[in-house]
Amino acid sequence: TVLFFCLQINCCLGGNVLVFPVDGSHWVNMKVLIEGLHARGHNLTVIRPTSSWYITEKSHLYTTILVSDDVNTGDFFTRYLDILMDIQKGEVSPLQFLTIQLEFFYMISRAHQHTCDMVARIIEDKELIKRLLDEKYDLVLTDPAMAGGVVLAHYLKLPLVMNVRWITSGEGHFAVAPSPLSYIPVPGSGYSDRMTFIQRVKNMLFYSIILVQDRFVVGPHYKALCDKYFDEGCDIVTLIQSADIWLMRLDFVFDFPRPTMPNVIYMGGFQCKPSKPLPEDLEAFVQSAGEHGVIVMSLGTLVNGLPMYVAEEIAAVFAKLPQKVIWRHLGDSPSTLGNNTRLVTWMPQNDLLGHPQTKAFVAHGGTNGVQEAIYHGIPVLGIPLFFDQFDNLLRLQERGGALILELSKLSGHTFHETLQQVLHNPAYRSNMQRLSRLHRDQPTKPLDRALFWVEFVMRHKGAAHLRSESFRMPWYSYHSVDVLLVLLSMVLLLVLAAVAAVRYVCCGMCWKGKVKRE
Amino acid sequence: TVLFFCLQINCCLGGNVLVFPVDGSHWVNMKVLIEGLHARGHNLTVIRPTSSWYITEKSHLYTTILVSDDVNTGDFFTRYLDILMDIQKGEVSPLQFLTIQLEFFYMISRAHQHTCDMVARIIEDKELIKRLLDEKYDLVLTDPAMAGGVVLAHYLKLPLVMNVRWITSGEGHFAVAPSPLSYIPVPGSGYSDRMTFIQRVKNMLFYSIILVQDRFVVGPHYKALCDKYFDEGCDIVTLIQSADIWLMRLDFVFDFPRPTMPNVIYMGGFQCKPSKPLPEDLEAFVQSAGEHGVIVMSLGTLVNGLPMYVAEEIAAVFAKLPQKVIWRHLGDSPSTLGNNTRLVTWMPQNDLLGHPQTKAFVAHGGTNGVQEAIYHGIPVLGIPLFFDQFDNLLRLQERGGALILELSKLSGHTFHETLQQVLHNPAYRSNMQRLSRLHRDQPTKPLDRALFWVEFVMRHKGAAHLRSESFRMPWYSYHSVDVLLVLLSMVLLLVLAAVAAVRYVCCGMCWKGKVKRE
Repeated sequence: TVLFFCLQINCCLGGNVLVFPVDGSHWVNMKVLIEGLHARGHNLTVIRPTSSWYITEKSHLYTTILVSDDVNTGDFFTRYLDILMDIQKGEVSPLQFLTIQLEFFYMISRAHQHTCDMVARIIEDKELIKRLLDEKYDLVLTDPAMAGGVVLAHYLKLPLVMNVRWITSGEGHFAVAPSPLSYIPVPGSGYSDRMTFIQRVKNMLFYSIILVQDRFVVGPHYKALCDKYFDEGCDIVTLIQSADIWLMRLDFVFDFPRPTMPNVIYMGGFQCKPSKPLPEDLEAFVQSAGEHGVIVMSLGTLVNGLPMYVAEEIAAVFAKLPQKVIWRHLGDSPSTLGNNTRLVTWMPQNDLLGHPQTKAFVAHGGTNGVQEAIYHGIPVLGIPLFFDQFDNLLRLQERGGALILELSKLSGHTFHETLQQVLHNPAYRSNMQRLSRLHRDQPTKPLDRALFWVEFVMRHKGAAHLRSESFRMPWYSYHSVDVLLVLLSMVLLLVLAAVAAVRYVCCGMCWKGKVKRE
Repeated sequence: TVLFFCLQINCCLGGNVLVFPVDGSHWVNMKVLIEGLHARGHNLTVIRPTSSWYITEKSHLYTTILVSDDVNTGDFFTRYLDILMDIQKGEVSPLQFLTIQLEFFYMISRAHQHTCDMVARIIEDKELIKRLLDEKYDLVLTDPAMAGGVVLAHYLKLPLVMNVRWITSGEGHFAVAPSPLSYIPVPGSGYSDRMTFIQRVKNMLFYSIILVQDRFVVGPHYKALCDKYFDEGCDIVTLIQSADIWLMRLDFVFDFPRPTMPNVIYMGGFQCKPSKPLPEDLEAFVQSAGEHGVIVMSLGTLVNGLPMYVAEEIAAVFAKLPQKVIWRHLGDSPSTLGNNTRLVTWMPQNDLLGHPQTKAFVAHGGTNGVQEAIYHGIPVLGIPLFFDQFDNLLRLQERGGALILELSKLSGHTFHETLQQVLHNPAYRSNMQRLSRLHRDQPTKPLDRALFWVEFVMRHKGAAHLRSESFRMPWYSYHSVDVLLVLLSMVLLLVLAAVAAVRYVCCGMCWKGKVKRE
C-alpha cells in the first residue's frame, strides 16, 4: 500500500502525455481532454502538422511539436460536401454516385497517406525521436480516425489511450468488441438495431465495402510504413486493437446497446456542462419571446450555408411562428426573413440549449450537438447532411426525442409540419427530458471517468488486464471455424463408417442369400 | 431537473426491494448487498424457504416471507462432495464417474424443481400474491443460480436485478454477452483464455454438455411452471436475459478479459474491507512468529475435514517450518501437529489476510477467499476441491500470484516444495501486490457501484436503455446464418448461371463444329 500511495502521489505531481490529434472537429473533442488533463497538473505535448486549420500553435495548455506537411485535402473536402448534399437532394445519377464514391476512396486514401507521411517524417528526424524518447512520456493519447499516433506509440513503445468515435473500419467498436451484424448497424447504413431481413442482408454488404476499403484503400499505407520502419513488421489493425484504453465519445443513452469490452470507457457528453448566463442582448431577445419560447437552429461548422432556396423556405416558415428564432447562418440573408428571427455567425450553443426558454433545436446531427441536446433535454428537428449525422439523429428519433427531415424532402410545408410536431407534441420534450435524466444519472461524470482512466494508464503503465488478446488469433480460430470443421468431419466419418458397416453386413447377407439361392 | 431531483430524494427516502435469494454460500454474498441497501434506508423483504440452512428468519435488516418447502438435497450434497474428492484423488473408475455425473444431473434437476415448487406455492397463495402486489416493490433482487426469483419477478411484472456468478448454463456472462468459445473457457474446463487446438475442441464439447443440461435437465422444470401460470407461456433463458442489471461477482483483475454488455456491472471484491485488529490472543500468536511471519490456511466452509492422511502430511510439513500457522480445521487433530500450528474452527479471515505478518494463504479457491487474497495482496497456495475452485485458482496462477496443488498430487514432499515457492519466491508476493493495486484503483468502490445501479433501477423503473434486445432474435438470425445462406445461394446461382452460359456457348460451337465436320 505504500507503493500504491507513492504511485498515486507521483501521478498527481504530473504525468507526461504525448498527444497525436486529428484535425478539424476531432480536435475540438481532443481539446476537452487536454484541458482536463492540464487542469489536473499533467504536462502535454501536441504533435501539430504545419498546415493545421484548427490546432493553435501557441497555447498555455501544451507544448507544440511542429511537423511539416504539404498535403492539403481541404479543396476536395469542400467539393465532396457539395456533392454529398446533391446526393441528399436526389440530384445525382448512379454514374455520378459511383464517381464520387471512388473519389471518396481516393480522398480517404490521401488522408491516411498524409498521416503516414507525418509519422515517417518524425521517425526520420533522429533528433526529434531522441527528444521524444528523452521526455519519457507516460502514454500516447490519440484519435485513431487517422492512425498515425497509433504507429508512433508502437515505435516509441508507449502505452496507448484512444479518444475515439471512428476508426479506419467505421465505428470504433468494430475493431475491439464483437459486433454481430444481425443487430449492429454498420455506420452510414441508416438502420437501427432492429433490422428487417433485407436490411440485414444490406448491412452485411455494407460491411463488406468497409472491409474492401480497409484492405485496399487504407491498409496499404500503414503496411508500407510498418515494412519500412519495423524489422518485425506490424499490422495496423492489430496495433489499434492493442490499445490499452478506449475512451469512446458516446454512451448508451445515445447509442443502441451492444457488446463492449472491459477496456472501453464511455465518455459520451464529456464536453457538456451546465449553461452559463447569455450575453445581455441575447438574453433580452430570448426573454422577448415570452411564453412561446425560442427555437435554436445550427447546421454545424462544416457547411457554410444551405442552398438558398432551402434557406428561403425555412426563413418563411420561421417568420410566421409566434416563437423567436436564433439561427446560426453564414450565407446571404434569406429575403423571407421575419422580424422574429435573428441570424448569427456564432452562438453560445450550450448556454442557449440550457436556457429555460428554449423549446426546440433544429440541428444537423453532429455528435456533439446531439449530446448537448440530450444533456439539456431539448427536442430536436434533425436535418442530416452527411457522415454520421443521419445515424446520430436516428438514435434520437428511435427514442422519441427527435424527428428527421431529409434535405431531399425539405419544403416549406414539410418543415412547418415537422417543426409543429416537435414544438407541440409533448412526447418529444418529455422523451428528451427522460434521456437527460438517464444521461446525468451516472456514478461518475463522463469527463472525470475519462481522466481517471488516462491516469490509471500512467499509474500502472498500461491496462493489460482489461485487454483481451483474442485479436491475435487467426480469424478461423477466433470464430472456431477450425474446431467446427474437425468436429463435423468426425461426425461425417462416423456416419460413413456406420453406413459402410451396414452395407457390409447387408451385402454379406445378400451374398449369402444369393449363394443359398444358387 | 426538478423532477430528477425529486426522484433522487424519493429514492433516498427508501425504496422497496423484494429479495429472492439462493441458500448456502450464495446467501453470504446476497447479505452483503442487503446490508448495503439497508444502510442506505431501503426496505427489504426476503423470501425464505422454511428448510433454509443459512438465511436467518429474524433480522433487523429485512422482513421475512416464509414459504414452506419439503425437499432436502443436503444428504446427496455431502455424498456428492465426498465422491468429487475421490475423483480428485483419481480413485474413481469411469463407470463410477458416469454414475456420479448422472446423479449430479439428477441433483441439479431436483434443486431446480425445488425453486420452481416454491414459486408455484407463492403464486397459488392468492393472499400472499395480493400482499406482494400491494407492497409495490421497486424491483426484485435475485441470484439466478436458481431462477425462481426470475420467474416471480416476471409474474409480478417488476424490474429485475441479478446478483450473479452462476446461472443455469454455467457462468453468468454466457447468458448475456457474446462468449466466443475460442478464448472463453467453459466453467469447469480448467482452461485459460489461451487454449491449444485440442483444448478448444474439448471446450466446445464441454459447452455442448452444458447445452444438453440446460435443455433436458434444467429447462423442463421452468417450462412446466411457465406453461401453468402464464397464458402466453415464457422461456426461462429469455426471462434471465431480460434482466435490467447484472451485478457480477467478479472483475477483470480476477477474471480473464472478455466481451461484456452495458448492463453488466462488475462488483468483484464487493465484500472486501480493510482488516480490523485481531483478538488479543491471536495477535500475540501472530506476533510471536517474528520475522518469519504467518501462514493462514482454510479450505472453506463446505468441507468438514480433509482426508486424515492428507491432514497428517500437511501438519508434518507445517511442523518443520519457522513460520507460525493458523489452520481452520474441523476434523480430528492430526497426530503430526507441531507447536507452531494452531487449529481453529473459525477465524477472522479478512483480518488475518490483511495483517502485515501474513506471508501466504493456503486456500481451496472459493471466489470470496480468492478476492480477499487479491484485496490484501497475499500469495496463494491453492488446493482446489470442486466446483469453480480450480478455475478461480487458475486465474491467480496465470497472473503469477498463486500455485495450484491438486489433491491427487498432494504429498508431504509436493506440499513442502510448493509452499516454499510461494513463501520465498518474491514474484508471487509482488504479483499479488500488483493485482491488489489494480483492484483497489477504481473510480468507485465495487459495493458502492452495485448499490448505485440498484438505486438507478429504482429511480428509472428499470434500465432498458442498457439492455440489448438481440436475444429475442432466433439463433439463426442472431448469428446471420439466414443472411449468409441467402448470399451464398446468390453467389452459387451466379456461378451456375455463368457455367450454364459458358456450356451453352461452347456446346453451340461444338455442335456447329460437328455440323461443319459432318
